[in-house]
Amino acid sequence: MSAPNRATLHARVLVDELAKAGVASVCVAPGSRSTPLTVAADAHPDLAVFSHLDERAGSFFALGRAKRAGQPVALVCTSGTAAANFHPAVIEASQARVPLVVLTADRPPELRDSGANQTIDQEKLYGDAVRFYTDLPEPAAEARKLRSVRVSADRAVTAATGAHPGPVHLNVPFAKPLEPTAVASDSPHAVPEGWADDHPLAARGRDGPFVTTTPGRMTLDDHRLADLVAAVEGAERGLIVAGPTDLEYAAPIVALAEASGFPILADPLSGLRYGPHASEIPLYGGYDGYLDERVTADWSGPDLVFRVGASPTSKPLRNYLARTDARQVIVDPAGEWREATFTATDLVTADPGRLAVALADRIDATHASADWPALERAERVHESVIADTDRFFEGAIARRVVADAPDPATLFVSNSMPVRDVDRFGAVRDADLTVLGNRGAPGIDGVTSAALGAGSATDDPLVLLTGDLAYYHDTNGLLALSRCGVDATIVLVNNDGGGIFHMLPIEAFDPPFEGQFKTPHGLDFAPTADLYGFDYVRTDGRADFADAYRASVASDGTQVIAVSSDAEASHRVRESIRERVVSELKD
Amino acid sequence: MSAPNRATLHARVLVDELAKAGVASVCVAPGSRSTPLTVAADAHPDLAVFSHLDERAGSFFALGRAKRAGQPVALVCTSGTAAANFHPAVIEASQARVPLVVLTADRPPELRDSGANQTIDQEKLYGDAVRFYTDLPEPAAEARKLRSVRVSADRAVTAATGAHPGPVHLNVPFAKPLEPTAVASDSPHAVPEGWADDHPLAARGRDGPFVTTTPGRMTLDDHRLADLVAAVEGAERGLIVAGPTDLEYAAPIVALAEASGFPILADPLSGLRYGPHASEIPLYGGYDGYLDERVTADWSGPDLVFRVGASPTSKPLRNYLARTDARQVIVDPAGEWREATFTATDLVTADPGRLAVALADRIDATHASADWPALERAERVHESVIADTDRFFEGAIARRVVADAPDPATLFVSNSMPVRDVDRFGAVRDADLTVLGNRGAPGIDGVTSAALGAGSATDDPLVLLTGDLAYYHDTNGLLALSRCGVDATIVLVNNDGGGIFHMLPIEAFDPPFEGQFKTPHGLDFAPTADLYGFDYVRTDGRADFADAYRASVASDGTQVIAVSSDAEASHRVRESIRERVVSELKD
Repeated sequence: MSAPNRATLHARVLVDELAKAGVASVCVAPGSRSTPLTVAADAHPDLAVFSHLDERAGSFFALGRAKRAGQPVALVCTSGTAAANFHPAVIEASQARVPLVVLTADRPPELRDSGANQTIDQEKLYGDAVRFYTDLPEPAAEARKLRSVRVSADRAVTAATGAHPGPVHLNVPFAKPLEPTAVASDSPHAVPEGWADDHPLAARGRDGPFVTTTPGRMTLDDHRLADLVAAVEGAERGLIVAGPTDLEYAAPIVALAEASGFPILADPLSGLRYGPHASEIPLYGGYDGYLDERVTADWSGPDLVFRVGASPTSKPLRNYLARTDARQVIVDPAGEWREATFTATDLVTADPGRLAVALADRIDATHASADWPALERAERVHESVIADTDRFFEGAIARRVVADAPDPATLFVSNSMPVRDVDRFGAVRDADLTVLGNRGAPGIDGVTSAALGAGSATDDPLVLLTGDLAYYHDTNGLLALSRCGVDATIVLVNNDGGGIFHMLPIEAFDPPFEGQFKTPHGLDFAPTADLYGFDYVRTDGRADFADAYRASVASDGTQVIAVSSDAEASHRVRESIRERVVSELKD
Repeated sequence: MSAPNRATLHARVLVDELAKAGVASVCVAPGSRSTPLTVAADAHPDLAVFSHLDERAGSFFALGRAKRAGQPVALVCTSGTAAANFHPAVIEASQARVPLVVLTADRPPELRDSGANQTIDQEKLYGDAVRFYTDLPEPAAEARKLRSVRVSADRAVTAATGAHPGPVHLNVPFAKPLEPTAVASDSPHAVPEGWADDHPLAARGRDGPFVTTTPGRMTLDDHRLADLVAAVEGAERGLIVAGPTDLEYAAPIVALAEASGFPILADPLSGLRYGPHASEIPLYGGYDGYLDERVTADWSGPDLVFRVGASPTSKPLRNYLARTDARQVIVDPAGEWREATFTATDLVTADPGRLAVALADRIDATHASADWPALERAERVHESVIADTDRFFEGAIARRVVADAPDPATLFVSNSMPVRDVDRFGAVRDADLTVLGNRGAPGIDGVTSAALGAGSATDDPLVLLTGDLAYYHDTNGLLALSRCGVDATIVLVNNDGGGIFHMLPIEAFDPPFEGQFKTPHGLDFAPTADLYGFDYVRTDGRADFADAYRASVASDGTQVIAVSSDAEASHRVRESIRERVVSELKD
């Protein structure tokens, strides 16, 4: 850990400590001011370094990788607007609780607000969207300062991965020289000869993290737990609603479902809709298509609902829960309120995984919740109506993408329509599918990058289901295919504009519907394949698409499978399926 | 101004007032929550509405348009990360002092921090980068609230265009219904029958702005002005240094130069390097190539320097000014410090235009500053050395772009190398060239969009000189060519990576130079022409390039003129020219 100058020393210490604290990969956007960090990351033997030319794309790549890996990913950029380009992904990471460690290089304090080149106010740039922020001290060969850098690095990673995971921000000032060049021994940037040997703790840290952090988890006192056990045992018809959530909660929630007999309504992004438990416990995925007021009016509703994760993607489900007078328990590790109908009755601040295991251990199985035939029948009818629909529409594409995804696979689904179609038509499957999406904010920005980042995190095949607006928004992200060595099957549903707007009342007002909402762009995306070097397959119709999709997931390299779609016609098919389901269930 | 519901009423009032306050154009990114604003903007007869699918590109388009037009441009987006995608352009607008009025649609207060879809914390999202921020009240048919909306709109535009221009941010909450649909008269969203007639002041505002704002300008008291007059009259060798600045200051500064005899060292982005005054006053543009310490060591330096605008692009100029022991007067309308060598002696908070005119009116011309033969000779030698260089390198491209630009024209130059090459090789010219760049932050993001936005503001032909990284970063911006009806000549210097890094010491360290700094991408951008529909012309060599460039500026439509360049070789030519200039001037 000897270093030719202070900036180099400082960056090496910071990067060394981040790696010891659990950061295994770094996404770097090239720049000058960040040179010490880039050089240190590149030289570190334990770090995977990904280079991104567009900071926005790079930050979403980091987000997707961190989400799929369940590990923090660091981001490095130079000073200036580069850091602001991270902002959308930082917000998504905050809301989706994904650990990102953002390192923004900055000018030294005297150059801030001075007219110096590429110098902006980076202090607290991301506001309340980060879990931890600090402006690190300037590089110096001073033991206390460097120990403080190590402690800040450990604290940052701990905050990013704690009970309320999310992004953290370290602003890192550097003065020139930025490169690892020797300076004269009387330079203010010099590191005295033998300094590292004299200060081994600061210079080299400890074996493992400098500060061993012991993360606590929110758990309930016994008497609080007993209340919930009693509630479960006393429930006639319990329900578990799993919204988009951390993948680690899936197995404990399955255990709770087994012990309690409560069925799970599983969001596609909950980590629960797909997996071997699908054939073992009551698991429902089609609810978006049948939780219609006309159907549920006659049902005996649930009397106890556990809600885990973010608010479900399905609006019919959210509305159904608002209509019940059940006791609804939001379980959230950060104690955040996560349902915007404001009808839940209990807010339990506890780690959902620990709580589910604790409940499962304590529940007397003889009290297991009753079957729920109405729900079973609705799911069955919904499935049969869909199976009976031979129209090739956007929902059928989503259904095929899920049904024929490799096992295992990572499936990334875009906002705004693909995730809704997967929610409604992507039936429960006994397969190791990890389905991810940007449902924190949730925007259509950074979708391709996040998908490729997720794909980079494992050897599982990667499938991305996206739409034309999201694809356009993040074409820059496609550069990661070659630069970061990711292969993907990208299903691109091109309905030439904002398909979701056909589902909204604004459709009836034209103008401005066509010009300002639908906003047809007329883009044919085939040239993106020439630009970024992959195969572009146009498909037309059900069989054609299915063949191309199966061929792609079975082959190496990247293929974009493009399907032209009529958003309005697809919307009519969705509606007609819903009406048929409702009509059959009302019989 | 009757309206079918409160959201519609509220948005109509806001948009109406913004238009009355001087906003003439709006860049809209499609979204649902912003529907009332989009509908109101689209329906307004006096507003030009531009639709952008990528908020980042849209916000830079707005920036470029506002900069070129000298008028505020509004931006509209939906809730969520869309607003964060504006952040880079908001920062650039803040630092470059460009008036943007950012309208971010938001959920109503009860849905914030509730788990509601696409809801983030948008309050003070841009931190200190905006001149004015307010969270508007929820839509209501209440006269006081709507008058307050009008006052906020007027205040926002006034703040955006005042003595310290820049971006402003109005966060605008809306509840459903968002579209202009009628609601029942007992709905909480209803506007009572006849309400607008009963409250004409709130509903319709006034003829012209609701609040007539009278913008003050910073001026000096007479005795302060007299001090500066005396300083000018007493100066033996005065100098005006014009950095990147507002175009409106150009004419007054020419008047000051005429009255004082002070030569102007004019940054290409100062609005002063090009124009009819070029043949009338001592105006220098080649200083980046000859203000070398070996040359200036023998010079009698200036004894008084007026510095206007941001810190000059030229580092040799900044260093030269730091070496002089002149009285250096920073004139800034916002009183900001704008030179990072910290050697200036005076900070005058005054409008540069008013101050220049006031000084010019008062100066006794018999005291006009002496000629400066050393400077004249240096400029001449520099010009002749360049003219004598037959190598085709990046500087020669920049020189040709300036020399053969139409008169008039808008020329947008990218960071980081194109602006430096135009600075050094884009000789002074007696032509109406408006040269713009993003020199606030200054990043390589949003360059294409800002250029096309600038092009949209006038009928002048538009030329963009850019590099491959900036071009890649903002390919999405190219969609504005067709969507916003802009034609351009885009000169794309492709040196396959970060050319500027060859000028930095990190070049000597490989790895990581090639992989993490130069970052060659190997992209051939010809497919972008197929994607976005324009001509792509590859050129090779001096004559070939000149022919293609002249043909493009003389023709309609958009042409990208691509030149492959070797960044390292170009850097060596720049160095050899500098050495020849120094060597001749030392003789």
